[in-house]
Amino acid sequence: MTIEEVPTPKCGLNDVLIKVHAAGVCGTDLHIWEWDRWASNRLKPPVVIGHEFAGEIVEMGEDARRAGILQLGEMVTAEGHIVCGHCLQCRTGLGHLCKRTQIIGVDRDGAFADYIAMPAGNVVRLHGIPTDVGAIMDPVGNAVHTVLEGAEVPGSTVFVLGCGPIGCFAVGVAKAAGASLVIASDLNDMRLDLARRMGAHVTLNPSRDDVVTRVLEATHGNGVDLVCEMSGHPVGHAQAFATARLGGRVNLLGTPSQSTEVDFAKEIIFRGLTVYGVTGRKMYSTWNTMGRMIRGGQLDPMPVVTHRFPLERIADAIGVIKDGKAGKVILEIAS
Amino acid sequence: MTIEEVPTPKCGLNDVLIKVHAAGVCGTDLHIWEWDRWASNRLKPPVVIGHEFAGEIVEMGEDARRAGILQLGEMVTAEGHIVCGHCLQCRTGLGHLCKRTQIIGVDRDGAFADYIAMPAGNVVRLHGIPTDVGAIMDPVGNAVHTVLEGAEVPGSTVFVLGCGPIGCFAVGVAKAAGASLVIASDLNDMRLDLARRMGAHVTLNPSRDDVVTRVLEATHGNGVDLVCEMSGHPVGHAQAFATARLGGRVNLLGTPSQSTEVDFAKEIIFRGLTVYGVTGRKMYSTWNTMGRMIRGGQLDPMPVVTHRFPLERIADAIGVIKDGKAGKVILEIAS
Amino acid sequence: MTIEEVPTPKCGLNDVLIKVHAAGVCGTDLHIWEWDRWASNRLKPPVVIGHEFAGEIVEMGEDARRAGILQLGEMVTAEGHIVCGHCLQCRTGLGHLCKRTQIIGVDRDGAFADYIAMPAGNVVRLHGIPTDVGAIMDPVGNAVHTVLEGAEVPGSTVFVLGCGPIGCFAVGVAKAAGASLVIASDLNDMRLDLARRMGAHVTLNPSRDDVVTRVLEATHGNGVDLVCEMSGHPVGHAQAFATARLGGRVNLLGTPSQSTEVDFAKEIIFRGLTVYGVTGRKMYSTWNTMGRMIRGGQLDPMPVVTHRFPLERIADAIGVIKDGKAGKVILEIAS
Amino acid sequence: MTIEEVPTPKCGLNDVLIKVHAAGVCGTDLHIWEWDRWASNRLKPPVVIGHEFAGEIVEMGEDARRAGILQLGEMVTAEGHIVCGHCLQCRTGLGHLCKRTQIIGVDRDGAFADYIAMPAGNVVRLHGIPTDVGAIMDPVGNAVHTVLEGAEVPGSTVFVLGCGPIGCFAVGVAKAAGASLVIASDLNDMRLDLARRMGAHVTLNPSRDDVVTRVLEATHGNGVDLVCEMSGHPVGHAQAFATARLGGRVNLLGTPSQSTEVDFAKEIIFRGLTVYGVTGRKMYSTWNTMGRMIRGGQLDPMPVVTHRFPLERIADAIGVIKDGKAGKVILEIAS
Repeated sequence: MTIEEVPTPKCGLNDVLIKVHAAGVCGTDLHIWEWDRWASNRLKPPVVIGHEFAGEIVEMGEDARRAGILQLGEMVTAEGHIVCGHCLQCRTGLGHLCKRTQIIGVDRDGAFADYIAMPAGNVVRLHGIPTDVGAIMDPVGNAVHTVLEGAEVPGSTVFVLGCGPIGCFAVGVAKAAGASLVIASDLNDMRLDLARRMGAHVTLNPSRDDVVTRVLEATHGNGVDLVCEMSGHPVGHAQAFATARLGGRVNLLGTPSQSTEVDFAKEIIFRGLTVYGVTGRKMYSTWNTMGRMIRGGQLDPMPVVTHRFPLERIADAIGVIKDGKAGKVILEIAS
Repeated sequence: MTIEEVPTPKCGLNDVLIKVHAAGVCGTDLHIWEWDRWASNRLKPPVVIGHEFAGEIVEMGEDARRAGILQLGEMVTAEGHIVCGHCLQCRTGLGHLCKRTQIIGVDRDGAFADYIAMPAGNVVRLHGIPTDVGAIMDPVGNAVHTVLEGAEVPGSTVFVLGCGPIGCFAVGVAKAAGASLVIASDLNDMRLDLARRMGAHVTLNPSRDDVVTRVLEATHGNGVDLVCEMSGHPVGHAQAFATARLGGRVNLLGTPSQSTEVDFAKEIIFRGLTVYGVTGRKMYSTWNTMGRMIRGGQLDPMPVVTHRFPLERIADAIGVIKDGKAGKVILEIAS
Repeated sequence: MTIEEVPTPKCGLNDVLIKVHAAGVCGTDLHIWEWDRWASNRLKPPVVIGHEFAGEIVEMGEDARRAGILQLGEMVTAEGHIVCGHCLQCRTGLGHLCKRTQIIGVDRDGAFADYIAMPAGNVVRLHGIPTDVGAIMDPVGNAVHTVLEGAEVPGSTVFVLGCGPIGCFAVGVAKAAGASLVIASDLNDMRLDLARRMGAHVTLNPSRDDVVTRVLEATHGNGVDLVCEMSGHPVGHAQAFATARLGGRVNLLGTPSQSTEVDFAKEIIFRGLTVYGVTGRKMYSTWNTMGRMIRGGQLDPMPVVTHRFPLERIADAIGVIKDGKAGKVILEIAS
Repeated sequence: MTIEEVPTPKCGLNDVLIKVHAAGVCGTDLHIWEWDRWASNRLKPPVVIGHEFAGEIVEMGEDARRAGILQLGEMVTAEGHIVCGHCLQCRTGLGHLCKRTQIIGVDRDGAFADYIAMPAGNVVRLHGIPTDVGAIMDPVGNAVHTVLEGAEVPGSTVFVLGCGPIGCFAVGVAKAAGASLVIASDLNDMRLDLARRMGAHVTLNPSRDDVVTRVLEATHGNGVDLVCEMSGHPVGHAQAFATARLGGRVNLLGTPSQSTEVDFAKEIIFRGLTVYGVTGRKMYSTWNTMGRMIRGGQLDPMPVVTHRFPLERIADAIGVIKDGKAGKVILEIAS
């Protein structure tokens, strides 16, 4: 991964060209940095990486302008999954699962750059949301999707299992959505601190706490209505199934790097659980809900941001993440 | 309506006897007081009125005790709709619509008394909820049902049309459930004050404000996701349909005393609206959600309570309600 | 309304040009023929009318071809509502309610012509569905939307109130979707015949039958789970509310030309009803479900087609519809 | 397991006494017969086994009679899960998941006997349904629950994985509920025959067919909307996840006797799947839907019944099941 001069991207008829002001660094970028098996199989270099960003519209294709929605000069962010619009999934409200998805910063040029060209349909107006928040709405949207999908959150009890940045955002989303009890767990106390700052009522560290027992105690023995599994670890899966109430729900976002032994009878069937796999953000109901929560002052993801670096210091940004010392890290690109 | 000595109610095998500590006065009680057409057709005197209350379990039938849920001496409230348990509605999760419903204080003896006998299955434990709040959970439950039914409230915009006690509670419920914008309207400024204290972001008085225009302005021209119609007035219905966004929802709780002219094409069909009629509280998911919201500190209905009287002064209680000077009124019966 | 030579429509970058083989005649076309108040306010002549059709792709714009979904020479139909794709409704799965909708044959040139140009995204492949069926999938889709929205049809009881073509299609859709009892009513016995051919178990003619009593009898006094209101008449609305079971649903498609007096308390609120206004077809889940039902042999709308005319005899087509002697009428344009 | 004279069960105040006419033999009874680990841990002999039955009401407790629903002499079946009615699950529409469930024929005396006493609230009237069908509505209800939960079946594609009796019933339910394509798989060709008789469009035998490939082929490469996993085998789980379309649903009923390795990332998360564990029947919406489907003639489970024995020959009944030669087996007890 190097910093190089590349041509300004071409702005197509339906595109807008965006001058990037700030960008978020994601675990995905770490995989690419380390060029692990996933990265080396998926990416076809050279590609500009980075998929979380906010910036200013500086050029508009003719069709994008004619649509009359976006304005030159306004601040925007964007959904980084560019989908086909024609498949079964795209046509039935499941565009986030389109098989032909191209992800910016992975399958095509991304946002760790001065400029990025995006299809107008993917662009989301900030409309008063601060640029830094706009730069991380992609992962905040993952949290919104995870917390709200299929769950009736108002008045409910939620357990967020794994407090990386998206887990911490999920704590804030659950609170904003009216959960009456939010429990969070992680092995890293710094992350639990962030979860508390985002509103967690109870924080658990599996190195000290018997997680399942503590969650059951906090819920009068019932377990929680919703588990947001953000760890991707087999231990997390087992805790998720054991802490969801009978008839409850487990929404899985954490991406495992290994398989998990599941006792379907005991862990899922006899418990009447619903388990859901979270991919991306729903296009665009997640963005709509998230935008309102942020503008309404109910959801502020900024306490999770612990570090900011200029683009040139991306190696330092990657470093603090790898060391487990960071919440969310933002790259400052222009202003 | 008179205050008389009556025998202590008999406590059946499946019943508990409750010593009433506090009771709420409802519009229904006003209709009975005035012995209007509805009341004279429905009630078969003598009947003890009152259907909102909280109190202490002082006796338990044998089957109620054996069920092992309720405890002698604990503070409880109760769902006042006693349903058959066998009909299509009771068997498919719609017990609140049972045709054979008997309402306490209307169809059988109620709660404006020292003691009331209730089927154990209707009893709800306060479990730390203050007695006064317990005494008004029946109407708070109406508000919970109205706000949450069929709506995805987190991040949404809600318009509460009519700010009697249940309207004011609905404002609080919408806030607790994560609405990003709550608008309330009423002709009575005292009630708008209560709505603001319950968290309304915007309050409108139709005597001064163009309600439809103001709601559209506050929602970027879209209208709101959910209207809670609490006025029961034809003007309220028209405003409800006109202020719901295309594809939005209108939940109707206010009981009209007259019919309304509806232009179904323009007001409902071309707008893709969903309209839902709210009766009672869902048994018992509404109570479950409400209890958690109150215990979690998200929902406090007490700012709506403006007056308290001992049972002997029920005439004064009715008086302040009739004069439009009251929010919710509580009768103190024992303590 | 006249038949004239007009230029072949221009096929834009994202469009396909379709040679029309057959087209359906709709009530909307009748309003235009009669140039009533709605038509004279909405249409800006000259405009080619007709919005239900099927035909062959004979030309493709460059972007449409690049999308790689549609093929030159294949038979297709299309969703006639061309929507903006950017508004709140379009972005949250409610494109059928887009405020900026342009309807073919009303707001822009339509299908009673040799050729029509359509945005590729609106085009739906017939994929083995007969051309005549393809020509009427627009109104069949209205029926699918009306029957399936918000209702759990398998095993349920459905009352279709009004048996014009869309009502008759709705009978067939309810059967295909697993309704255990389908009741249909209309004043016109020929239409009731068609409803029976589409599978209605019980047909009622209000000129002879007490509709409400008969529906209650057929449902053990409960009323039906779902009423599809296709008449748009105040009498129909009253029957709809009275025949839906407590907690049931009324989906309204029939467009009233006058207002209706509604007693919200008695007809909707105390009955716990849900009422939904049906506009168009959901884009594109309705098309997906409909296509599968037709291809799977569960749903055959052809018994409703009673007349066919060449395009030149459109006056005769309009005539049989006005005389109430027709089910669905198809115009043959090419083959 | 022996056949003995036992006293006629006592009929409590809320109970009815039922003279058993016919009973179904279930896999559970086989486990008890073989006294495997599950059976020896769960049952406290002596207990009358058998939980699927139909019969005639011959005695009614006083409260049951007063409820005015059931009639002496009428034919009924019953939900065999007797639940507490007071817990979180019972109070929120999830009674089938009550922790204090007592199952007849397992935790208390069951139906392989001349008489059984059942709480009136568990009794379901046959109302014209044949006795033999009534005797197997318990497992048919499992199939109804599995097929309908969370799925929009009308027009959809369904894969039933495992064609024991409940799998075969599920094929029939999917057809009755309007599925446009039903695929069934099993290693046993006799069972595939039964599945075809219940309406399966495509049957697959994994010993000959590449199941995943064939399901994808039959669905234009998409996979199915709903998989009903009835095998309980790790290979079945893997096939279930691989054959569900992106964003599809897997409802798990088959009870595994071992754990399964799941690659959550690849099999569930990136596919956006929803997985649901099926326990029992929803009380009582499943029964309501099932009764209508059977009475409406849409669903006939009888083709799955391959054998009938008098109660005395229960050993033979168990034998044909163990040998894999039977579909559903019915015990004739009285008539």
